[in-house]
Amino acid sequence: MSARVLIVDDLFPNVKLLETKLGLEYFDTLAAMNGPDAIAICEKGLCDLVLLDVMMPGMDGFEVCRHLKSNPVTAHIPVVMVTALDQPSDRLRGLDAGADDFLTKPVDDTALFSRVRSLVRLKAVTDELRQRALASREFGIGDPLALATAETGLDARILLIEDRPGAADRMAGALRQHHAVTIEPDPHAALQRAAEEGFDLALVSLDLAGFDGLRLCSQLRSLDRTRATPLIMLAEEHDRARVVRGLDFGVHDFLMRPVDRNELTARVRTQVKRKRFTDALRGAMQASLQMAVTDALTGLHNRRYLDNHLGALFADDATRRPALAALILDIDHFKGINDSFGHEAGDEVLRGFAERVRQHTRPVDIVARYGGEEVVVILPEAGLVEAQIIAERIRERVEAVPFTVQRCTRSIPVTVSIGVAVRHAEDASPGDMLRRADLALYRAKASGRNRVEPQAA
Amino acid sequence: MSARVLIVDDLFPNVKLLETKLGLEYFDTLAAMNGPDAIAICEKGLCDLVLLDVMMPGMDGFEVCRHLKSNPVTAHIPVVMVTALDQPSDRLRGLDAGADDFLTKPVDDTALFSRVRSLVRLKAVTDELRQRALASREFGIGDPLALATAETGLDARILLIEDRPGAADRMAGALRQHHAVTIEPDPHAALQRAAEEGFDLALVSLDLAGFDGLRLCSQLRSLDRTRATPLIMLAEEHDRARVVRGLDFGVHDFLMRPVDRNELTARVRTQVKRKRFTDALRGAMQASLQMAVTDALTGLHNRRYLDNHLGALFADDATRRPALAALILDIDHFKGINDSFGHEAGDEVLRGFAERVRQHTRPVDIVARYGGEEVVVILPEAGLVEAQIIAERIRERVEAVPFTVQRCTRSIPVTVSIGVAVRHAEDASPGDMLRRADLALYRAKASGRNRVEPQAA
Ligand SMILES: [Mg+2]
Ligand SMILES: [Mg+2]
Repeated sequence: MSARVLIVDDLFPNVKLLETKLGLEYFDTLAAMNGPDAIAICEKGLCDLVLLDVMMPGMDGFEVCRHLKSNPVTAHIPVVMVTALDQPSDRLRGLDAGADDFLTKPVDDTALFSRVRSLVRLKAVTDELRQRALASREFGIGDPLALATAETGLDARILLIEDRPGAADRMAGALRQHHAVTIEPDPHAALQRAAEEGFDLALVSLDLAGFDGLRLCSQLRSLDRTRATPLIMLAEEHDRARVVRGLDFGVHDFLMRPVDRNELTARVRTQVKRKRFTDALRGAMQASLQMAVTDALTGLHNRRYLDNHLGALFADDATRRPALAALILDIDHFKGINDSFGHEAGDEVLRGFAERVRQHTRPVDIVARYGGEEVVVILPEAGLVEAQIIAERIRERVEAVPFTVQRCTRSIPVTVSIGVAVRHAEDASPGDMLRRADLALYRAKASGRNRVEPQAA
Repeated sequence: MSARVLIVDDLFPNVKLLETKLGLEYFDTLAAMNGPDAIAICEKGLCDLVLLDVMMPGMDGFEVCRHLKSNPVTAHIPVVMVTALDQPSDRLRGLDAGADDFLTKPVDDTALFSRVRSLVRLKAVTDELRQRALASREFGIGDPLALATAETGLDARILLIEDRPGAADRMAGALRQHHAVTIEPDPHAALQRAAEEGFDLALVSLDLAGFDGLRLCSQLRSLDRTRATPLIMLAEEHDRARVVRGLDFGVHDFLMRPVDRNELTARVRTQVKRKRFTDALRGAMQASLQMAVTDALTGLHNRRYLDNHLGALFADDATRRPALAALILDIDHFKGINDSFGHEAGDEVLRGFAERVRQHTRPVDIVARYGGEEVVVILPEAGLVEAQIIAERIRERVEAVPFTVQRCTRSIPVTVSIGVAVRHAEDASPGDMLRRADLALYRAKASGRNRVEPQAA
């Protein structure tokens, strides 16, 4: 993918050099000569990736990185730190600040391009999700981005695919301070376990005896059930070419042997954070969709859900339609409850009422709030007699125990009237069936309430 | 990205050859020796891309392709047809069947890998969106996938970036049968127009005088406002290497000069369809989010939206809070309307009532359905007197004209009672303000209805 790369360096020749290199590879570039400018560009959403010099007067690279990674607006932008020194302590400070990777000056072209491309491609997939999640924020449905930046990256379930017992034990020892680690030396078993056990991350040795670890990585990246699991390759120094290849097809990160404990824990943490960020975005979208078909007060399905599903049931060929019954339930004198005890007590009664209806229906039944104090229950494969029995059971359970409100300081006796109808072969739409149930409800109300009435014969 | 490639060919050695080539590049492969098997694998969602032989006994490649592209479950899977003959007519039949590209046997490795990688990467971005949209289908919120496969790919707005007048006119002539075409010979102007004029597709010449067309492509793929626009490169035969480069950074397709009119229209159509598919998915997600905060019956905001936004307003520091007023509106004797005219007439009254409230409030006001026949209006920066004036105007407009229901065959006189409150500095939550409005509403009801009452002094 092409992308806009922000080059941050206090020295103009360094900026120029990277601009030229990246330009020749058809990346778009922007430049900033100090930390605050870099942060401003990122906050405006003008770049896809940051190449960040460590040593700068004023705000140094570590501080810029920490700033970017702690702000929900910029936390998703990959940061690669560029340092003149290849000091493990510097690498660690950067990784701790949240950097996605490190490059050492003079920057090696292969390392630069493979890293930038890999991070940009991974970001492109998440960006789409992030855009949708941002929309959910505009609609006032919570803020998944803020939640995601609060993520620690600890307490992960890690699969370590490594057949050298000594190395496996050393790495597991370092990781177990903060995570649960499963060691699996066999690549075939590892593939299966990765698919079935839901790990947050897998570390894959590229030096497995008799098996190409890179192929295992490609399989993990291809299978539906493991695609979302971040992968870190473990490689020997002479294996740089295979590492580049892995990054190219979507492996998230790598560690060179001998593996530094601190770098191991830092990189694992970064990947776990990133995965949980993506998971949080997916979860937010899922929650928004769920909300669209859920009544906020009672947690029952809403009328939109009922209409969609009933419409689909009636769209089937009339001759193939199975039996189907509908109940319309209406709390008796609900207006009086609101007037006497206040709206909040009325809401509590509605919630309690919804809960009792749910307790006395099956998971396959659709229970939806239909209007103010009305609930509709759709009973698949139920006939009129069976539906009346279920309705009568609900009516009884509502009457039997008064509803407590205002933190259990008051108790309100409640009754419900219920109209029952079943689908007729000649019904043109769900409205026909619901109208019969509504008429039956009307008769239940007219003949004294707290009653179940079936549709007219 | 790594991916699962389905190889479809009736000859085992052909399957084997492609399996070996792709395996060496770390793709996962599956094989099918006939059309029906291939379709079954795709329907199960087991592959990311199909390499499809044209000549097969029984169902040939064209038929398989048409089948895959017309089924909402498989339409998003890229199909590359592999043919022994390089006949333009064969290419056209394939493209018309919906194929994404063509490769000629013996398959050239560079062409194979660059094409497969490019299609798989583009798909990875859309897949995330598709997953979310699929969830919306499970929740019963329409079916964006079915809508998307019904898309024709015609009537698109196309930007043709080409500085050779003859070639530009020839291509524009062919495309104008079905699309609106804008020719722009200047690359700088083209970039600006692409960002501002919202095209469905851009065709970019790689042979612009004095400008690298490939760089223009990379800029179009990098800018936020043009990233979603599909790009097709126009290239000379000797420029294959640059074409591969373009595919590598995310250009969607290419055409070799001299451009065949039919191939041009077919490839444009495929890309337009794909873009509109993605747009439909995004639209479906947006609609779902909107639904989550909208009352289905009245189209007003729902209580969830009100609670979220009021919560955010009250989260501000108390001393910095601007003035804010709340109206609670409750239709008088609504239960009676339902009982006398039926629920459907009651719903019509509610919709009409919502519409009148909306007409007499400003876009900055929040108008939300609060309960059955209750609507809450939040008036930012309004004081008690101003809020009472607005409330009185709404009360008058509701009383002035009866509501017509049942296709205008009946007319129902309706009145509304309204309680008005303003925010106090000492309010701990929106509930405090709403409770005052609710008490005022209660007094409006108690003193005869069809009245506006302010909060107690
Ligand atoms: Mg410096
Ligand atoms: Mg054949």
